[in-house]
Amino acid sequence: MKCSSISVAQSSAFLTAFELPPTGSGMLDGLCFAVKDVIDVAGWKTGCGNPTWRDSHPPAIANAVCVEQLLRAGARCVGKTISDELAFSLLGQNHFYGTPLNPQAADRVPGGSSSGSASAVACGLVDFALGTDTGGSTRVPASNCGIWGFRPSHGFISLAGVNPLAPSFDTVGILAQSADVLARVGLVLLTCAPVPASKPCKVHLIHEGFALADADVQHAMLEPVRRLRDFFGERVQELSLRDLAADKSARSFASWSDTFCVIQWAEIKSCLGAWIADAKPELGPDVAASFELANQLDRRCVAEALERREQYFRSLHDFLGLHDLLCIPTTPALSPRKGDAPARSSSGSGYYPRTSAMTSVGGIGRLPQVSLPVAHAGGVPVGLSLLARHGQDTLLLEVMKSLDQQQLCH
Amino acid sequence: MKCSSISVAQSSAFLTAFELPPTGSGMLDGLCFAVKDVIDVAGWKTGCGNPTWRDSHPPAIANAVCVEQLLRAGARCVGKTISDELAFSLLGQNHFYGTPLNPQAADRVPGGSSSGSASAVACGLVDFALGTDTGGSTRVPASNCGIWGFRPSHGFISLAGVNPLAPSFDTVGILAQSADVLARVGLVLLTCAPVPASKPCKVHLIHEGFALADADVQHAMLEPVRRLRDFFGERVQELSLRDLAADKSARSFASWSDTFCVIQWAEIKSCLGAWIADAKPELGPDVAASFELANQLDRRCVAEALERREQYFRSLHDFLGLHDLLCIPTTPALSPRKGDAPARSSSGSGYYPRTSAMTSVGGIGRLPQVSLPVAHAGGVPVGLSLLARHGQDTLLLEVMKSLDQQQLCH
Repeated sequence: MKCSSISVAQSSAFLTAFELPPTGSGMLDGLCFAVKDVIDVAGWKTGCGNPTWRDSHPPAIANAVCVEQLLRAGARCVGKTISDELAFSLLGQNHFYGTPLNPQAADRVPGGSSSGSASAVACGLVDFALGTDTGGSTRVPASNCGIWGFRPSHGFISLAGVNPLAPSFDTVGILAQSADVLARVGLVLLTCAPVPASKPCKVHLIHEGFALADADVQHAMLEPVRRLRDFFGERVQELSLRDLAADKSARSFASWSDTFCVIQWAEIKSCLGAWIADAKPELGPDVAASFELANQLDRRCVAEALERREQYFRSLHDFLGLHDLLCIPTTPALSPRKGDAPARSSSGSGYYPRTSAMTSVGGIGRLPQVSLPVAHAGGVPVGLSLLARHGQDTLLLEVMKSLDQQQLCH
Repeated sequence: MKCSSISVAQSSAFLTAFELPPTGSGMLDGLCFAVKDVIDVAGWKTGCGNPTWRDSHPPAIANAVCVEQLLRAGARCVGKTISDELAFSLLGQNHFYGTPLNPQAADRVPGGSSSGSASAVACGLVDFALGTDTGGSTRVPASNCGIWGFRPSHGFISLAGVNPLAPSFDTVGILAQSADVLARVGLVLLTCAPVPASKPCKVHLIHEGFALADADVQHAMLEPVRRLRDFFGERVQELSLRDLAADKSARSFASWSDTFCVIQWAEIKSCLGAWIADAKPELGPDVAASFELANQLDRRCVAEALERREQYFRSLHDFLGLHDLLCIPTTPALSPRKGDAPARSSSGSGYYPRTSAMTSVGGIGRLPQVSLPVAHAGGVPVGLSLLARHGQDTLLLEVMKSLDQQQLCH
């Protein structure tokens, strides 16, 4: 573990602490990390945040491929962190294992489902941590906890040894204390060489993304967006969803959220439904309600949602140049207060549909996204997100680093 | 079922026959299909070709997303087909469920692991069938059985409800009796509109791919390649691996095969290793030997293999224009005779390393690939493959259709 003023016990972030030494030497020498408990570490059970899951599955016999890559590059692994139950939540409150500490806003949830990983990083207990991100599970807790978070382009970091949730959207995410560490870990997992620092051609602020945010989040974004304009000048431009969507339905964020949720819920049922029906696990009430929603979905809708998804994906892909970025707030609202958990719903103006709308751009677009710990509102952290074209992860990581050096984030 | 001169029983292709009616109407009206037994059909166990797996897992409670798409587009599902054990073989001989018939070469194996799906199509029992393709499991049986086979770009057809084998390479594959049906099914699953027929800019014949093939396969390829030149003229060009590889190691096909196998084996151990260690299933001798190889892999090699994989991927991606194709034989050898099963090995000049070398181009490149039933050698079918850039699946399907209309394949 690292030296931190917050203890492991105080953080409530860890399920298990151990010491797994590096198997090689390289870009991550000297760094330590923790692993979300949906990712295999050899010899340990992968519990996926639910005791019945843990008890009905054998221990992992091999490290997940992504864990193997990090050890090989010189990092050491110090433990496994709490996941929201079956990774199906954005809050970070686990009915069985508790709520990891959000050290910058202790009365608020850390966000999930990579809650323990975000907390361990934010509490200064590790240099970085592995999470997963299907519908925001790395980006949202990064924003809530005031740390750096990265969701890679879909399909470019190995998912072997990571429990599937919704394969069309599943990714391995990274949470880190600094932009430099995040970039190094990203390059190791993507197996990319760093690219020369370069400015993006354009940075498109998505108007509807900022408009969807609460007033306090909008206000908190003013200064970092002003600095972004200082730094990139006229490359920063406003854009409306209608500019990037050939399809009329794509002009409304609600349609992005709905498209995403239908596919995600259908896939979650495929991945976990038979086990739940068979093992009849005890589930926390919020997660049980979420699975009920996924269960009730009329699967005949999925084909239409997949068609919309590919239309939106292609629109985005055609619109975005190789060196262009998109910019939105990471979340539309501050982290909810503990005990004040918003209900999951598929539509309306609640926390879940608005947050899903914001995170669905990355999911539907298969885009890489970083959340920068850029601002606070009333002392509560909130992140600003940059997204790049599918496959342009290294450009995104380089731009992130240069923004950090220009002190966009302090 | 369709009307065929070969009965379901004679084909030995099916595990279960049933009738699942369409849930909508569209491009696949009137067509019937079968589903490889690693893909979920609601109410049925997904047995993955192994009785212990079947008995230790609950029935599927939902159709896989890809099955749902096909039913919605008007097709009806008529049964589940035999998979090679745990989908980890290219042969098509299942120790427990037998060897589906290769109707064009009854003394030879159908190829696997989508053996039952290929056989059901080749026997004329269905219009098309779903398979999976991680390391050739759709392309190889398509070539062996003299039918059309398609592996999509990685990441563009939903894998929800499909048992994971090696997530970095797993895809849903399609086997079909005709180019027209294959293209229609492909467009439904990819949720793409047809593109206007267009000729590719260039068709690169990979010299080493043809050189790797046995003399009888090389000879069988002469006439179809001549017709390809007739049809596309000077767009058809020879290319050497060294032309498309920045990295020196990529100039040898052995390195492609090795890179692919290391990652595939590491991921297979992550996906299936804990279950095998815990459930101690009875395995057929060939598959047991294959898992032993996967088990013995030093996982510290994986990081280097992933680096090579991304180098090769990027070389290919940079080399291939949007409208360019690659061309290689689908397999370097004719389908092995029954009872003459080649051993799995990681190197040398045997069936597995040579076949893996040929199929690894698509896997490492994340490329879409079609195998065209283009020729016979001594009465035994053998396929020619075309590959397009990652994401250019619709172009590939259109070119395939136009080649069919020009009678390249008859």
